[in-house]
Amino acid sequence: MGLDENDPREVSRRMNRQWLLAKRPVGMVQESDFELVSNPIPSPGDGELLIRNRMLAFEPAMRGWMDDKPNYIPPVAIGSVMRGMAVGEVMESNRSDISIGDFVTGMTGWQEYAIGDAGTRKIPAELDPALSLSVLGLTGLTAYFGLREIGKPKEGETVVISGAAGATGSVVGQIAKIMGCRVIGIAGGSEKCAWLTDKAGFDAAIDYKNEEVEGRLGALCPDGIDVFFDNVGGEILDAGLARIARGARIVICGSISNYNSLERPPGPRNYYNLVRQRARMEGFVILDFLGRSAEATTKLGEWVSEGRIVWEKDVQSGFENAPRTLLRLYRGANFGKQLLEI
Amino acid sequence: MGLDENDPREVSRRMNRQWLLAKRPVGMVQESDFELVSNPIPSPGDGELLIRNRMLAFEPAMRGWMDDKPNYIPPVAIGSVMRGMAVGEVMESNRSDISIGDFVTGMTGWQEYAIGDAGTRKIPAELDPALSLSVLGLTGLTAYFGLREIGKPKEGETVVISGAAGATGSVVGQIAKIMGCRVIGIAGGSEKCAWLTDKAGFDAAIDYKNEEVEGRLGALCPDGIDVFFDNVGGEILDAGLARIARGARIVICGSISNYNSLERPPGPRNYYNLVRQRARMEGFVILDFLGRSAEATTKLGEWVSEGRIVWEKDVQSGFENAPRTLLRLYRGANFGKQLLEI
Repeated sequence: MGLDENDPREVSRRMNRQWLLAKRPVGMVQESDFELVSNPIPSPGDGELLIRNRMLAFEPAMRGWMDDKPNYIPPVAIGSVMRGMAVGEVMESNRSDISIGDFVTGMTGWQEYAIGDAGTRKIPAELDPALSLSVLGLTGLTAYFGLREIGKPKEGETVVISGAAGATGSVVGQIAKIMGCRVIGIAGGSEKCAWLTDKAGFDAAIDYKNEEVEGRLGALCPDGIDVFFDNVGGEILDAGLARIARGARIVICGSISNYNSLERPPGPRNYYNLVRQRARMEGFVILDFLGRSAEATTKLGEWVSEGRIVWEKDVQSGFENAPRTLLRLYRGANFGKQLLEI
Repeated sequence: MGLDENDPREVSRRMNRQWLLAKRPVGMVQESDFELVSNPIPSPGDGELLIRNRMLAFEPAMRGWMDDKPNYIPPVAIGSVMRGMAVGEVMESNRSDISIGDFVTGMTGWQEYAIGDAGTRKIPAELDPALSLSVLGLTGLTAYFGLREIGKPKEGETVVISGAAGATGSVVGQIAKIMGCRVIGIAGGSEKCAWLTDKAGFDAAIDYKNEEVEGRLGALCPDGIDVFFDNVGGEILDAGLARIARGARIVICGSISNYNSLERPPGPRNYYNLVRQRARMEGFVILDFLGRSAEATTKLGEWVSEGRIVWEKDVQSGFENAPRTLLRLYRGANFGKQLLEI
């Protein structure tokens, strides 16, 4: 077209591609649940920004946002832009603290251009956007506060994490190691398990696709599990509940095995073990901890730069591939934080 | 036979009838899982007592003690006397603090005569034995510590209790009222429900046999349930989980709907609501609180004598009817603490 894509003067002539939620998914989310449209690029009002999104982040919880059911945030409305975190570059600014060319992050959604509001946060230009969207983003905060505030592990305790090779789980395990715990991860496939023990410093890993999880947990945790950090739900949560120690804390963070179920699956059969073991199962929502995010990102940033937290990213590319990229999460196809470069 | 049953001199000539656990129940416990035998009356050793049991107490948890599965206490061995709390009269004493004719309580089991050990506790002679075995026994302690230490209700909060007309549930509700809470009970049948609201001072009752529990909970708890004290499990626990408020505490005390299931039934489908509502589900075992029982029995005794806690008993009679009496619990046939006069 002969346009200089990076020239802000050209922006107003171009259109904004957006992925809308077209319909409520029934069971497994499909690409056809979304619709790709083009709309004029909006203009920022007072105190607002025009952002050109550069990278989108994908989290398993997104599936829940697509259902019209009570949740911790309202569902994405049919016909509106799919909700999601992104990093983008500022094209126009009506904020004194943010300039054109700055990089920002916020819940700006699946669109090429977005209006940034007060919730939009500036990030250092030298920072890998992928890091802002993973260890130093909601993912890292979820790991940090979920483990420390809900799981409350003590030095020497045994911490088990399901979905351990996922973006959240892998950070949970590494924080637990820093806190002096023995850490066991449950993940799917030998490659992910090898990464956990060889790269992320986990003491052991269980490959749920090829091993009997409850038996392996019994062998690896002869004194039981003190903290079970659950990202998965289903049979793996049940296996964990079967092996909890006296006074255990089960942190319910996610339930990826259930998000796409057509019918609500059975709950954890072994919940009654909470009685025998005087144990506690507790949920949390990371939004409640955002006021304390500086504490967490400072710590997490230090640990990353010291090499005490390693992390992986799975970067797909092309805005048109957003729905396809989301689906990777539910197939377990990603290894590391699932991202899409626009 | 011309014997004076109450003459201690005759004791040594008589036999001790005992109900043994004959086999592990499969599914619903049967009378045939027990065996009635006669053995010589034992002699107490140093520091021991010979007790003639007068009243046996029955609790839903007994079903769990009969299974050879991990539990908070070892299973009752096949061929040994069925475990249970009782009140009895001391016939011989090798303890300086307890005399012949005193009344005592302890885990002396389903037998006419028992040896009392250090765990046997003297009770006031003027006290109704049924009270020692209910509100002032393990039942009352379970209600007191389960509600206060695990449920932690605050004044003005909404407390919902399943199995509310049961011995534990009815005390839980009345303590919650004393603590300034709004209290709703779930029970089976209009008679039990009427008792809850008319006699026990509950604010409302739901008859699960004739009403749709989840819908009624929604109507009665527009701001959600702050403390759900669960004695039942199954669909009623799920209905409660569906209606919890932000920051709710679900106290897992019992699971009477599941104790006799042949297969372990599905767990609570709605467990994931713990995430949305930042809620906590926690189990406890009353044995952990026995060191603090004086605190509880003092309070409970005051509340009973002030008429602030009312209670009911269901007293069957005849030692030969012990298994039959236990079964009443699982049919919901009892109204009030299930007891058996020997």
